[in-house]
Amino acid sequence: MTETLIYGKNSIIEALKSSDREFNRILISNTCHSDEKIEQIKTLAKSSGIVFQFVNKEKLNQLVPEAKHQGVVAQVAPVNYCDLDDFIDKHLDELTTVVILDGVEDSHNLGAIVRSAVCAGAKGIILPSRRGVLVNSTVEKTSAGAVNNIAIIKVNSIVNAVQKLKERNYWVIAADHHADDNYYDVDYTDINCALIMGAEHAGISKSLLKLADFRVKIPMLTNFNSLNVSNATAIILFEIVKQKLSAKK
Amino acid sequence: MTETLIYGKNSIIEALKSSDREFNRILISNTCHSDEKIEQIKTLAKSSGIVFQFVNKEKLNQLVPEAKHQGVVAQVAPVNYCDLDDFIDKHLDELTTVVILDGVEDSHNLGAIVRSAVCAGAKGIILPSRRGVLVNSTVEKTSAGAVNNIAIIKVNSIVNAVQKLKERNYWVIAADHHADDNYYDVDYTDINCALIMGAEHAGISKSLLKLADFRVKIPMLTNFNSLNVSNATAIILFEIVKQKLSAKK
Repeated sequence: MTETLIYGKNSIIEALKSSDREFNRILISNTCHSDEKIEQIKTLAKSSGIVFQFVNKEKLNQLVPEAKHQGVVAQVAPVNYCDLDDFIDKHLDELTTVVILDGVEDSHNLGAIVRSAVCAGAKGIILPSRRGVLVNSTVEKTSAGAVNNIAIIKVNSIVNAVQKLKERNYWVIAADHHADDNYYDVDYTDINCALIMGAEHAGISKSLLKLADFRVKIPMLTNFNSLNVSNATAIILFEIVKQKLSAKK
Repeated sequence: MTETLIYGKNSIIEALKSSDREFNRILISNTCHSDEKIEQIKTLAKSSGIVFQFVNKEKLNQLVPEAKHQGVVAQVAPVNYCDLDDFIDKHLDELTTVVILDGVEDSHNLGAIVRSAVCAGAKGIILPSRRGVLVNSTVEKTSAGAVNNIAIIKVNSIVNAVQKLKERNYWVIAADHHADDNYYDVDYTDINCALIMGAEHAGISKSLLKLADFRVKIPMLTNFNSLNVSNATAIILFEIVKQKLSAKK
């Protein structure tokens, strides 16, 4: 199989819990202080017949030279990307939130967005296949393994994907700091939400903005340039969560 | 002067705008495509009598080997840390929000938190001097220069700092995912807020939790482990912003 590395305890635990993830083997530092999570990794690996080996810490440092591996690295198949039609069909019977990233470039941002999206109950992340970052080892680590708990959908055209979502009964919300409406003025409780977030510098492209049913801004108390995209995404997603929880009462 | 490097257009523009920041010189890549921001850097530098030089891009790559410098690097004095008493005295006449980080370790997280705090109108960030990360080049870059727009307060004891804030009429809100109350159930409109956020793995220490006037959680729609600390901070800070803006109407 094509192989990628994932590292960090949470990333590996979440990948082991996912039935979709194919493992080659797990390498654990022989000087790693065993704790609850390392034991959980060993137990999950044993129950799935996945090999784990104890190796010199230097070996792990060589494999992951620029990041904290927490004493454990796994050789796995890359994350599976989903098809948009399959995703929509799978979630027909429930109100669904999906996050569309219009070319986010930074791996730390993508990882944090995936993590927040999973916590917020979103079911999918849509990424353009030829712009911005895709799922890599840094994204997996920064997401704390959340990439295994959500559909990652790679599309050739974000515009086409948004058009398809609109046809399939999704409401499109675009975060745009020039918008008139605030993100908390939209009622998210009874709709399928497709939330579009722009790239770090370029924001959302004009052709996409035109497709939005709602353009919303996050109002600020200063005129400092703008929020980090992962923080902005979390703010809007958790307004959706809050509304959904409040509506249930 | 002791010197540090800052890089990236926004980081340098914000540092130039700040009267507190001492510059040695600014290095601009001689192959850097000049744009509005590079012109702004040159104009601001000229008006403050700060030297800028055009250098080979390789020189900048050597100075900042592991990050995107966007063609511009500045040699500056480190950020000035503030004293807590001075900070409190300075903000006596207004309702003030301050964020207390109990040992956040990751530079990207600290940078994003500083940026969101500035956007949310918070006036200070309190950091422990001997645990967690302090302001470094990565924090400056990730904050998009926001470290120049907020008081960064370094204290020997977070517990003592929180006790002092309580004595000086701040209400202490601790983010704790074991809490009973939701973050949006607190009324933030008419109080000085001291928001405590925990470290990435350890959370908030018990001795600090005891001092909290409110313990709040961010409710989620799945049982995935937890949010990234910068995203969690942004979610709570922008609930405070929303309440303050709604109360003004």
